[in-house]
Amino acid sequence: MSSPDKYDFGMIGLGTMGRNLLLNMGDHGVKGAGFDKDASKGELLEKESTHHNLKGFSDVKLFVESLNTPRAIMMLVPAGKIVDDVIAELLPLLSKGDILIDGGNSHFTDTNRRVDELETKGFHFFGMGISGGEEGARRGPSMMPGGDKDAYNVMKPILESIAAKVDGAPCVTYIGPGASGHFVKMVHNGIEYGLMQLIAETYEILKKGLKLDNAEIGKIFTKWNEGRLKSFLIEITKDIFAYKAPGTDHLLLDDIKDEAKAKGTGKWTSQVAMDLQAPIPTIDTAVSMRDLSKYKQLREQAAAIYSKDEPSLSVNKEEFLVALEQAFYFNMIISYAQGMQLLARASEEYKYDLKLDQIAKIWRGGCIIRSEFLNDIYNAYQKNASLAHLLLDGHVHDLVAAAVPGARKVLTATIAAGIATPAYASSLSYFDAFRSKRMPSNLTQAQRDYFGAHTYELIGKEGVFHTQWVPKSND
Amino acid sequence: MSSPDKYDFGMIGLGTMGRNLLLNMGDHGVKGAGFDKDASKGELLEKESTHHNLKGFSDVKLFVESLNTPRAIMMLVPAGKIVDDVIAELLPLLSKGDILIDGGNSHFTDTNRRVDELETKGFHFFGMGISGGEEGARRGPSMMPGGDKDAYNVMKPILESIAAKVDGAPCVTYIGPGASGHFVKMVHNGIEYGLMQLIAETYEILKKGLKLDNAEIGKIFTKWNEGRLKSFLIEITKDIFAYKAPGTDHLLLDDIKDEAKAKGTGKWTSQVAMDLQAPIPTIDTAVSMRDLSKYKQLREQAAAIYSKDEPSLSVNKEEFLVALEQAFYFNMIISYAQGMQLLARASEEYKYDLKLDQIAKIWRGGCIIRSEFLNDIYNAYQKNASLAHLLLDGHVHDLVAAAVPGARKVLTATIAAGIATPAYASSLSYFDAFRSKRMPSNLTQAQRDYFGAHTYELIGKEGVFHTQWVPKSND
Repeated sequence: MSSPDKYDFGMIGLGTMGRNLLLNMGDHGVKGAGFDKDASKGELLEKESTHHNLKGFSDVKLFVESLNTPRAIMMLVPAGKIVDDVIAELLPLLSKGDILIDGGNSHFTDTNRRVDELETKGFHFFGMGISGGEEGARRGPSMMPGGDKDAYNVMKPILESIAAKVDGAPCVTYIGPGASGHFVKMVHNGIEYGLMQLIAETYEILKKGLKLDNAEIGKIFTKWNEGRLKSFLIEITKDIFAYKAPGTDHLLLDDIKDEAKAKGTGKWTSQVAMDLQAPIPTIDTAVSMRDLSKYKQLREQAAAIYSKDEPSLSVNKEEFLVALEQAFYFNMIISYAQGMQLLARASEEYKYDLKLDQIAKIWRGGCIIRSEFLNDIYNAYQKNASLAHLLLDGHVHDLVAAAVPGARKVLTATIAAGIATPAYASSLSYFDAFRSKRMPSNLTQAQRDYFGAHTYELIGKEGVFHTQWVPKSND
Repeated sequence: MSSPDKYDFGMIGLGTMGRNLLLNMGDHGVKGAGFDKDASKGELLEKESTHHNLKGFSDVKLFVESLNTPRAIMMLVPAGKIVDDVIAELLPLLSKGDILIDGGNSHFTDTNRRVDELETKGFHFFGMGISGGEEGARRGPSMMPGGDKDAYNVMKPILESIAAKVDGAPCVTYIGPGASGHFVKMVHNGIEYGLMQLIAETYEILKKGLKLDNAEIGKIFTKWNEGRLKSFLIEITKDIFAYKAPGTDHLLLDDIKDEAKAKGTGKWTSQVAMDLQAPIPTIDTAVSMRDLSKYKQLREQAAAIYSKDEPSLSVNKEEFLVALEQAFYFNMIISYAQGMQLLARASEEYKYDLKLDQIAKIWRGGCIIRSEFLNDIYNAYQKNASLAHLLLDGHVHDLVAAAVPGARKVLTATIAAGIATPAYASSLSYFDAFRSKRMPSNLTQAQRDYFGAHTYELIGKEGVFHTQWVPKSND
């Protein structure tokens, strides 16, 4: 029942993300109610609301009663137990047919469980990944909703109005059943980890290898952002290389501790990829390098005995920079390709029926991994929805083939010099293994059969076989 | 109550491993009873028993009644649900105080659960990793028992008698509380994955890079097994390079399909390491390469468009082989070092109080990863039980420093030539990052703070900070 005194949409959790999403809705004419136990958050929301169509609550019952039915409520609270707690508190107040949306970064297995639990109780539940950070939430995020399609269709007008737009198309689409929305967001974040690690290693090469100062490094990222590497992450890197520590003449970046934190979505991506046997070594490497960064004391001890000489590249700087742009482009393509293959595997395994072209399409705007290259990914899957691997697309092939010499040139130089470029190395190694008609894995199988009688298969012959590789010791 | 008509030890699951362990016990004077639903397995056991002190059962009640109390029963059945099913079937037949041992490759979290469940019911439970494959089980395995220490002490004489011996010392020791035995065995297997992948890549380099034939490759592994690389895995590789496909003149190895299978322990190691934030990228890479090998059709398609030219190394063969031995030695050290650090982290996190020297000691014989180098690991942790990382040991440092030039030489050559060596690349990249006093992770933190307000830390200053990196868009 729609009442003019009531609100169209409810948001639980009025942190920056929740508030900004509501403010974004307010800009698009949605009457929104927000709930947060901390009353000051609701007050802040009302203060920030320029259209005066948003209201804050700190009493959950009043908040629920203020909404038009069937209610549409989104939670934007930290993943894990808190989501379950909020649901438990909310359920007795809701009516059958209400729509509940988890807009946080929940693990997709939690979302699966919640979809099942809430469906049997008569509620519509969907998990929706939201990317874009604070600014995206406020001005237009990329959104990945999955689950109950009827519920999505009810929400669709609001979601399309607040989403980022690329060439007029909103960066939101129905992803698929179950927890597919959160799954796709998780893989988005995995790709993000890969790209961020690649940018960090590029910084390492420019700084320690070419001995460039911050101004020169900033210029390179600025230039890259004007070409085919144009992307949100390169853009913010350029900004970071322009930001001076307040009251000083040097970059804030130089003062920041080199210990990277993580909220876990990259780790989840790697762990799930291993369960699905979909190799994503570039992303795995990014996860392990964030972890390694935390052992700063150990690294200092190791540096004292293993890094007495400063590394340096003896290369022609101009030529090397051309190769470096190729190398980064190549590595970036590999990161996306691994992520897309993981999505394809998950779609098969979990019956998500993912439309990879549509996913690439909604990632082109609003989200952290938006980039020029996503247009190429979109085109590849548009041409061929059942493309088995992004690297098999003809146009992508041409891009890769042209960039791979640069990737080899840079990596051989950094390895020779001792400059750590693990994700560069993972990406190129993955590519070289991927393009191997024969891998040396026949030896691995022979070994497994030798010591564990795990059997092996033969080329061109059905069945599994076991061999007594050496005579048994005398029984 | 000990009765001369009864048996001292019971084994559930008379596959090759279970039978061989019992036969090993029989050799050492243990009266053993074996149970398997398949009666032919019990008959086989009795037939193979040369000392006539082993008996097979296919009725679980008769089997349990045949054992002296308190009973000591080991399960050697496939990990997962089957273990729970066997326990459920067994419990009503047991008496309080009986000892139940899970000798399979159970996930350590399952073992944790079972320890708790069985303790409250009055049974002694311990999880024990066993390595050595069929032959090890028969002639002397390496065993990693963890859990109830009293139960271990009861079993100790039998376990020490059947274990492999190195310089007279048995390859078994009490590992620690809870599921520590299975945890340590899991990490053992993770290291095994790393080493096997490194050997496979070495084969790839020798075959595709140096274009050596199998006889020449076999000679190299034979020679390596006579030097500091002496180890079980190199030894069996040498044997595999001597085994002709029956009735032919070529190696069986050449007929085996290049798709590597896995039972999951390597994957578990990588997944848990990510939870513990203990980076083990060499092992991660081994897991992802087993996975990649399974996509044979994809690889064939990729090869058709990306691998038109055959790779080849243009190097001085003799010099390169010297470097290759150094490279393998270096990479092998890194694999072990990553595994040991994971153990140290787990010991801290789960309060296992692991004795890393003792673990290295019992890995020197009987198990799949036994090698000459384990003596160096043993010595390092003997000298300093709280050594923070294997690479920080003085002697290991000298070995690494001498081998790293070879590792760089080989890897730059394979990368330039396009020969896939992902685990070689992971190992050296890990080392270069590990010896970085400063990693480029400050940039990662700046980016995270930029787009997600995730905050950062400053060098030499307490607290966390957030910056508005660019002016907010007009609200």
